[in-house]
Amino acid sequence: MAVAELSTSFTETATCFRSSQLSISSSSYSSRFSHHLRPSFRPLPRTRIPTISCSLTSDQVQIQAESPKGKKECYGVFCLTYDLKAEEETKSWKKLINIAVSGAAGMISNHLLFKIASGEVFGPDQPVALKLLGSERSVQALEGVAMELEDSLFPLLREVSIGTDPYEVFQDAEWALLIGAKPRGPGMERADLLDINGQIFAEQGKALNASASPNVKVIVVGNPCNTNALICMKNAPNIPAKNFHALTRLDENRAKCQLALKAGVFYDQVSNMTIWGNHSTTQVPDFLNARIRGLPVKEVIKDHKWLEEEFTEKVQKRGGVLIQKWGRSSAASTAVSIVDAIKSLIIPTAEGDWFSSGVYTNGNPYGIAEDIVFSMPCRSKGDGDYELVKDVIFDDYLLKRIKKSEAELLAEKRCVAHLTGEGIGFCDLPEDTMLPGEMSSRKDIFATSRSLLRQSREPQPLPVTLVHHHPVILLRLVPSEHLGLPPGMINLGR
Amino acid sequence: MAVAELSTSFTETATCFRSSQLSISSSSYSSRFSHHLRPSFRPLPRTRIPTISCSLTSDQVQIQAESPKGKKECYGVFCLTYDLKAEEETKSWKKLINIAVSGAAGMISNHLLFKIASGEVFGPDQPVALKLLGSERSVQALEGVAMELEDSLFPLLREVSIGTDPYEVFQDAEWALLIGAKPRGPGMERADLLDINGQIFAEQGKALNASASPNVKVIVVGNPCNTNALICMKNAPNIPAKNFHALTRLDENRAKCQLALKAGVFYDQVSNMTIWGNHSTTQVPDFLNARIRGLPVKEVIKDHKWLEEEFTEKVQKRGGVLIQKWGRSSAASTAVSIVDAIKSLIIPTAEGDWFSSGVYTNGNPYGIAEDIVFSMPCRSKGDGDYELVKDVIFDDYLLKRIKKSEAELLAEKRCVAHLTGEGIGFCDLPEDTMLPGEMSSRKDIFATSRSLLRQSREPQPLPVTLVHHHPVILLRLVPSEHLGLPPGMINLGR
Repeated sequence: MAVAELSTSFTETATCFRSSQLSISSSSYSSRFSHHLRPSFRPLPRTRIPTISCSLTSDQVQIQAESPKGKKECYGVFCLTYDLKAEEETKSWKKLINIAVSGAAGMISNHLLFKIASGEVFGPDQPVALKLLGSERSVQALEGVAMELEDSLFPLLREVSIGTDPYEVFQDAEWALLIGAKPRGPGMERADLLDINGQIFAEQGKALNASASPNVKVIVVGNPCNTNALICMKNAPNIPAKNFHALTRLDENRAKCQLALKAGVFYDQVSNMTIWGNHSTTQVPDFLNARIRGLPVKEVIKDHKWLEEEFTEKVQKRGGVLIQKWGRSSAASTAVSIVDAIKSLIIPTAEGDWFSSGVYTNGNPYGIAEDIVFSMPCRSKGDGDYELVKDVIFDDYLLKRIKKSEAELLAEKRCVAHLTGEGIGFCDLPEDTMLPGEMSSRKDIFATSRSLLRQSREPQPLPVTLVHHHPVILLRLVPSEHLGLPPGMINLGR
Repeated sequence: MAVAELSTSFTETATCFRSSQLSISSSSYSSRFSHHLRPSFRPLPRTRIPTISCSLTSDQVQIQAESPKGKKECYGVFCLTYDLKAEEETKSWKKLINIAVSGAAGMISNHLLFKIASGEVFGPDQPVALKLLGSERSVQALEGVAMELEDSLFPLLREVSIGTDPYEVFQDAEWALLIGAKPRGPGMERADLLDINGQIFAEQGKALNASASPNVKVIVVGNPCNTNALICMKNAPNIPAKNFHALTRLDENRAKCQLALKAGVFYDQVSNMTIWGNHSTTQVPDFLNARIRGLPVKEVIKDHKWLEEEFTEKVQKRGGVLIQKWGRSSAASTAVSIVDAIKSLIIPTAEGDWFSSGVYTNGNPYGIAEDIVFSMPCRSKGDGDYELVKDVIFDDYLLKRIKKSEAELLAEKRCVAHLTGEGIGFCDLPEDTMLPGEMSSRKDIFATSRSLLRQSREPQPLPVTLVHHHPVILLRLVPSEHLGLPPGMINLGR
C-alpha cells in the first residue's frame, strides 16, 4: 500500500498564520469595500448600544464613498446603532447573542438564517446578531441574503454582518454553525475531500480560537463532519473540546421517522434514538436502545430481520432517494435538524430521553476509542452543555457495528494528522463511505462552494500546514461504491 | 390600436368544466398512482380520526402494489391514522386545519411549507394538514418535499397530501395559498401572461368554489396577482369576495425598511404603511399616512424630494437589486411576507396600526373603482376577516398615483374579461409595469412552472373559456421597460 507521509510543524505556525490572514484580509477589504461606507442619514438622537445592519442600495453607497467611517462589521451593509433598553417592548429582552454561520450563501443557510432571525430557535426574548461567512465570490450573494433578512422585518434580528475572513466574522461568536464545505467533485476521493475540507476547518478552528467567545458552541455540518469537527477542535485549543459537535441530528430524525412508519405510529412516539459513530454509511442507528411509546423497539416491531437488515440502509439512503425525487439535496430538513441540535443544547432534555450528537470521545463511558468525534447519546440541562448518557445497553450486533464506525473514524483521523498537529497524514480508507445523497445540485454547489474557493484558488500566505495543497495520497483498496447514486455524483451537505 | 375581441359563454361552461376535469384527473391518477398504495405495517390499535401522511420508499410501494386500499389524499405517501384526543399532549389542541398550497414544489413554497409545519404561522396548538398542488411533472418533487417535511418531525404537522388536480387538493381547504404561476418567458408580453396565468386562476377559482371550505381564505401570490385574484374570485361565486387577497405584503415590508433606513430608525418603528393599488410599478407606497415612531413620515424625513422621487422606486427596484446580487428571486422574504399576511388576518391588528392587502374594492370608502382587486389599508379582529381603514388622508400627489394604478387594474380587468365571465378580452396595456425582480432563476422557474405545464402542454377537455389558448392580442404602444433589468429577463414570484 502506498502511503504519503508529510510531517508539519503545526503549533509553531498557528500564530503566524493568524496574523498574516488578518492583515491580508483587512487590506483586501479596504480596497474591495472602499465604496461601501456609512451613509449620511441623520439618526434620531439616542444611546447607541447594539448595532443593526441593513443593506445599502447602490446610490447610497456612492453618496458615502468619500467618508470612510464604516465599522468593520458593517461594510457593505447599512449600519445603525440604537438602544434596546430605551424601548418598552425590548428592555426585558436578553443580551444580544452573536451567531456566526459559514456557507451563509448556500441553501441550507438560506433556510437556517431565517429560522434564527424569526426567533424560532433562541426564543422570543433573545435578540440575535447574524455574522455571515462567505467567500469573496459570494459577497454579493451574502448582501442579497442580508437584504432579504432586512425585508423580513424580524424584530429580534438586530445585526447582520457579512465577511470573508473567519477571524473577523467569528469575532465574539457565541455560536458557530459551520455549514460551508467544499463539495466532492467528480472523481474526487474521500481522502481528497478530507484534506481539502480539513484545511478549511483547520483555518476556521484557528479563527475561532483567536476571535470567538471562549465558550463558543460549534456545530459542524460540512462533510466529512465528524473529522472536520475534530480538526476544528484541535486547532482551537483554548475552546473546550466538549463545545464541538458534528451534526448527526438529521440521521436521528430520519431514523425516528422510519421506525415510526414501520411501527405505524406518529413520529413523536419514538424516543431515545441514538446515532452512533460517523456521519457516513458506517453510522449506527441504534434500535436496541430506542423506544416506541416507551417500549423497546424490538417489542413493538417484531420484524427483527427488517431492523437488522433494512432499517439502517433506509436511514442512510434517505438523502439519495430525496435527491432522485426532489432534484436537490435536503436543505430544508437539514436546517430543521440544525435547529433541533441547537435547541437540544439550550432546552433541558425531556425526562428519560436523549439526543444524538457527534462529540469528543475523551472520557466516554462506552469504551469507544478516545480522541475522535463520535456520535453518541447526550442529555442537556439546557445550559449549552451536555453529558453522555450512561444507561444504554449493548449487544454483539450493536458493538460490532460501533467498532466498524470507530475504526473508520480512527482511519480518518490518521488521514488528517497533518491538520490536527499530529504530524503525519496517513490515509488508508478501504471503502467509500460517503452517504448517498451527500451531493448537491449544481446550484447548491455553486452557492456554497463560492464560500470556499478563496482558500484553494487565490494566492495568499499560508502556514506550513496549508502549503501542501494535497499532502495525502490514498491507495484505494476497494472501488468506490456510491450506494445507488450514478457515478460522478458529488457530495455536499447532509 | 388593434384589439382582439373574444366572447365566451362563461357561466354555462363552469359546471361542465368542473366535472370533466374531475373525471380526467381521477382516471389519470388511478393509472399513474396504481403502484402507490397503503403499506402493510400493523398499526397499534387506536381510534382513527385525523390522518398523517408520510412518504413511501420504493420497496414499500412495491410490496403494496397488489392491495389498492389507499385513500385519495394519501397516494404516493405513507398514510397513518390516529387519534389526537388520545394523547395527553395533543388533546387540548384545536381542530386540524387544511392548508392548500399551489406551486408547492417551488422555492417560495419550500420556505413557506416548513414555516407552516413548524407552528410558526398558526400557533403551537394548531395541528395542520398541508395539501400540496403541483403538476404531473412535479409529482416526484412534491414527494421529495413531503419526505423532507416528514424527516423534520414537526409535531403539529398531521397530514401531508400531494396532488395535481386542484379539485382534489382544495378539498375542505380553509386556506388556499396560490403561489404557482407561469413565469413570464423571454419575449412574452404582459397580456400573454395575464391570459396564461388567468386561465390557471380561473380553473383554481372553480376548483375552490366546488371543493374548498365555503369560507376559505385565499391569498394569491402568483403574478399578476391582483388580476389573478380577481379572476379566481369571479370563478368562485360561492366564496365571499372579501376572502380573496393579492399579496402586496412584501412591498409593504420593503417600504417600511426603506423608510426606516432613511430615517435612521429600526424598522419596527415604522407603522401604518399602505401599499395602494396593483402589485406592479404603478403601486403606491403611501408616505403620507405612514408613521415613524408614531409621527407622520414627513415630519421625520425632511427630504421630501427623496420621498416623492426616490422612495417608491427603491421599493419597486428592491427585487431587481436582489436578483442582481443573490442570483435568484426573493423566495425567503416572500415566504415571510405570506406568513405576515396570514398572521395579520388571524391575530388582531395592533391598536392604531394597519396592514396592506390587495382586496376587492366593492364598497370601499376611498372612491376607488369598484370590482377590482386593489391593495388598501386593512385591519383585522383576528377572525380571518378584515375591514378597510377609514381614517386615511389623501393629497393630490397620492390621489394622482392611486388613479394611475386604478386605471391599470381596470385595463387588466378588461384584458381578462373572457376569464371573469364578462365576455370580451380587450387588452390595452400601454406600459410594461412588471416589477423589476419579477423573474426567477432557471431553477425556480423549472420548479414552479412544472406545476403549471399540465394546463398548457397536455391535451385535455377544456371549457369554452379555455379553448382559446391565446385569446388576447396586445398592441403595445410603449416599448417595455424592464427598469434596470437586462432584456429578456423573465418574471416570477415577487
